[in-house]
Amino acid sequence: MGSEEEVKVIGSCVSPFAVRTMIAFNIKCVEYKLIEENIFNKSALLLKSNPIYKKIPVLIHGQRPICESLVILQYIDEVWASGPPILPSDPYGRAIARFWAAYIDDKFFAAQYAILKAGGEEGQKAAAVEEATQILVLLEDAFTKCSKGRKFFGGDRIGYVDIALGSFLAWIRVIQKMCGVSLLDECKTPMLFQWAQHFCADAAVQDVLPETDELLEFAQLFVANLGKPTG
Amino acid sequence: MGSEEEVKVIGSCVSPFAVRTMIAFNIKCVEYKLIEENIFNKSALLLKSNPIYKKIPVLIHGQRPICESLVILQYIDEVWASGPPILPSDPYGRAIARFWAAYIDDKFFAAQYAILKAGGEEGQKAAAVEEATQILVLLEDAFTKCSKGRKFFGGDRIGYVDIALGSFLAWIRVIQKMCGVSLLDECKTPMLFQWAQHFCADAAVQDVLPETDELLEFAQLFVANLGKPTG
Repeated sequence: MGSEEEVKVIGSCVSPFAVRTMIAFNIKCVEYKLIEENIFNKSALLLKSNPIYKKIPVLIHGQRPICESLVILQYIDEVWASGPPILPSDPYGRAIARFWAAYIDDKFFAAQYAILKAGGEEGQKAAAVEEATQILVLLEDAFTKCSKGRKFFGGDRIGYVDIALGSFLAWIRVIQKMCGVSLLDECKTPMLFQWAQHFCADAAVQDVLPETDELLEFAQLFVANLGKPTG
Repeated sequence: MGSEEEVKVIGSCVSPFAVRTMIAFNIKCVEYKLIEENIFNKSALLLKSNPIYKKIPVLIHGQRPICESLVILQYIDEVWASGPPILPSDPYGRAIARFWAAYIDDKFFAAQYAILKAGGEEGQKAAAVEEATQILVLLEDAFTKCSKGRKFFGGDRIGYVDIALGSFLAWIRVIQKMCGVSLLDECKTPMLFQWAQHFCADAAVQDVLPETDELLEFAQLFVANLGKPTG
């Protein structure tokens, strides 16, 4: 499969996981066709392309579907290897990046989801916020080690861990507006606070992360539908 | 970090995740020092080397720790690139292998754990067994597509998905003995049944997978301690 085949992404900018794919293609300067998915009414193409998880994003390269956002990021980095790299060039750097990206999906996503799910349950919400904050404090420490004084986890350029965490920034803003919770705190995690500004200002990210009000509308619908089957 | 640095593995053959690391080093014909870990009384070295998850395996290469078994497998494949490959050579093959290995950790491990946790609760046990069986049926289908009539997911040789799933085979045997449940069924998943024989007979695997009775003893202790903090 060559890098010149047709590139389609089943996704939506409301999904942080789909946003990752879009940022990666922007970094690589690769044109792709976005097939907008409605997660409340899943398309036949999505169900056929990702029968296991039935989730976005799916990258369709030529005729072949590739699922799971972190798998897709690595695939993009390997196929379009002539563009700027997404993963570090050395095996140890790649191992550390894979570790933290998996950690973000395992822990931070769950904590963010728990805040949304808690709704008006103040005790549950406080516990979920505390959990998310602890995770971000750990990531602040990881940032110091990975970035070595530079702007990004990936160094001077946005890399794998930047994309993994940065894809949640729009949801962090929505949670602030919806739940009155400031997750990325200038006092508790000053480096990540600054990192977030750099990340959002990057040319590969700017037009991809959704506006807060636009995402807020979706988030309210999403929370109202929590627990209901989505097809 | 060169491939000639000292190689240590904090692990134990009772852990399917640690077993993966050992199999990978056997494939690559790399000597390593196993630092046997007691998961009921975790060592200072483990807590220092994997402060985030506090889990085995940890690979210590030179002075640097690498955590999480699938991250370790990819690291080993990249550092000892001159040995037989563990991941497929093409990006699409690698994406598919990464997808299934993550699926195994996400779904099959959880189902196997649920069977052990169910204990005498017959309803819970039946549900967990049904879940595990459905996962194995899906993996049977994946095997057909990946192996293309050859012996392994990886083709003629054991690869990434083989190691990810095969590392659970000793536990599958223990569950059969302990819970009277035959997960890898010759009728329901005939290809995987055959694959398991090939896998266990492989030179890289033979001396690594624990004997059923030895693991059974550990499993009984493990189940008795479920829910208790392990340090």
